Amino acid sequence: MKKTKHLSVKRRSPGEAGVLERIEEIAARIHIRGSGVRLGIGDDAALFTGTSGFDQILTCDWFLEGTHFLRDKHPPDAVGWKCLARAISDVAAMGGAPSCFLLSLALPGTHMGLWLDQFLGGLRRAAERFGCVLAGGDTTQNQNILISVTALGEVRTGRAVLRSQAKPGDVIFTSGRLGEAELGLRLIRKIKRRVNSRDLVLRKHLYPEPRLALGRWLAEKRLASAMMDLSDGLSTDLPRLCAASGVGARVEEAKIPRVRPEQSGPSRGDHRLNLALHGGDDYELLFTVPRKKLQRIPHFQNGTPITAIGEIKKERTLLLVDEAGREVPLPNLGWDTFRKPGYRVRD
Amino acid sequence: MKKTKHLSVKRRSPGEAGVLERIEEIAARIHIRGSGVRLGIGDDAALFTGTSGFDQILTCDWFLEGTHFLRDKHPPDAVGWKCLARAISDVAAMGGAPSCFLLSLALPGTHMGLWLDQFLGGLRRAAERFGCVLAGGDTTQNQNILISVTALGEVRTGRAVLRSQAKPGDVIFTSGRLGEAELGLRLIRKIKRRVNSRDLVLRKHLYPEPRLALGRWLAEKRLASAMMDLSDGLSTDLPRLCAASGVGARVEEAKIPRVRPEQSGPSRGDHRLNLALHGGDDYELLFTVPRKKLQRIPHFQNGTPITAIGEIKKERTLLLVDEAGREVPLPNLGWDTFRKPGYRVRD
Repeated sequence: MKKTKHLSVKRRSPGEAGVLERIEEIAARIHIRGSGVRLGIGDDAALFTGTSGFDQILTCDWFLEGTHFLRDKHPPDAVGWKCLARAISDVAAMGGAPSCFLLSLALPGTHMGLWLDQFLGGLRRAAERFGCVLAGGDTTQNQNILISVTALGEVRTGRAVLRSQAKPGDVIFTSGRLGEAELGLRLIRKIKRRVNSRDLVLRKHLYPEPRLALGRWLAEKRLASAMMDLSDGLSTDLPRLCAASGVGARVEEAKIPRVRPEQSGPSRGDHRLNLALHGGDDYELLFTVPRKKLQRIPHFQNGTPITAIGEIKKERTLLLVDEAGREVPLPNLGWDTFRKPGYRVRD
Repeated sequence: MKKTKHLSVKRRSPGEAGVLERIEEIAARIHIRGSGVRLGIGDDAALFTGTSGFDQILTCDWFLEGTHFLRDKHPPDAVGWKCLARAISDVAAMGGAPSCFLLSLALPGTHMGLWLDQFLGGLRRAAERFGCVLAGGDTTQNQNILISVTALGEVRTGRAVLRSQAKPGDVIFTSGRLGEAELGLRLIRKIKRRVNSRDLVLRKHLYPEPRLALGRWLAEKRLASAMMDLSDGLSTDLPRLCAASGVGARVEEAKIPRVRPEQSGPSRGDHRLNLALHGGDDYELLFTVPRKKLQRIPHFQNGTPITAIGEIKKERTLLLVDEAGREVPLPNLGWDTFRKPGYRVRD
């Protein structure tokens, strides 16, 4: 009986039950211990028991065809991985650990076979990697592929790291190298066909790794005064952290970690800097540390480089110090879909 | 400074910050005591502290232009109300009380002025009515209006009412009158212009009221063995409850509460029955009660009619007993977007 139902999905007109059944199969195959999910897919809602002494972290993220990915170029398993990674990155940015997630998925009838299988494969790998259970969701049919992921995480009460607590004098840090994901996107836009998901240069764009271990460590040790994830580019996200904290910042151009010359290929010298300043989708952590705690910040944490790039200032301006030592205003040229909708005009 | 920003939104090219700012304003105006939300909109994620001894209920629901509402016909404030009501109805169906919700909203540039204001007005009224706080969300630009709402609720540990616990012999109940929302939808489809949001015949379709008080009462008193909300029509939802419980059902046609003749207008006698059997969007509660607890189920609860419509059976078939006493199979003709996408083909 179950088998017949499953097979009928692959032909046509599967019905909501058919799609749900396959999502349920994947959910059942995600093995994570002690997630707190008491009731998963199949009822009106999921049930979750939080850990005593912990707050719940709640976040949701769109992942829409045409805006966040391209149907014909992005491999379905990368879409599955990345839609979850984006939401989980917000959990990392609060200093928390993921527990479960909900998947809202709308699909065209043409994408309920192989595409859905590969999408769910990538989603499952990401869920196991990040340690969170697929607890529920909603599915519907639509001519465009629409995804919204709600992620839940936990953080010890009082330990969450907010955007709003940066203080003048705090040093600004970032993890990783900035601009790698944007470089991947640019390469993808030059290719006419669907990209190879194993291409290493594209890895950061296709399969971002939320900095969960770093975020938790900074929160548990109370080292960061403020933190957020870099999803829209340093030049857009740093102003958000500063606005939330009521402060300004001074960033040193030369210190900003960027893609290696051998990655970006032959190009003008400022190309790599622009990628690092304005490129989105890096999902690195941007955080501030009070000076008295600076000596506890290592250069690497779990293999991830950590770089001091500037300082929080009392004056509410955003300044970039160029290689010649001149201070210039930091232009806000990152990613904002309301200003510049879609991939087409992202340059 | 804030005022200038706000005004600029009403002109053009508001930027994500502008839209977020207006959502934040509405969130700040939703006044609900003790929601457990410790940190709302404006950071990477929201923070929520659950009540000790309670489980969290998690659910998300699509509300998409063209599938769940029509841009040119449905008043924006009804879209705001209903997108939240749908999700909260799932909380009611578990026997819980809502606590907070996340809003994923994608809008065309043309809908960021008056439409957004009216949408947020309806959303705010619903949030206050249902007692839940807008804790966060995600916004982006898109040519279609896309909404996904994630609702959180709480239910005392062990008291949630699942779909899967109906037993043979249990009596099947429904709240309210079924088919009223479908009737409203049919009226709307006949009208060429945007409908009047104060039309009483359309009230059930435009502004559904999740049965929160009834759901909580049934859960707290441990009266219902199984429960779900009727979102896709009795003939589609009852099979789901039965499948989850591994049982069948026998429903008496004559007992199914339906719209009054004066509401539906002159029509064939089976029109009202078909609305009640197959019409979606009612958000009434469908629940089962063990026979020994039957005497504790009143005919009305808080003004809502409660009607016994049939019985759970061991045999896994779904039977309808017609007015002549004949048993016929109950056809599954409710709402399933994968089978019948969009409003256009819903008849």
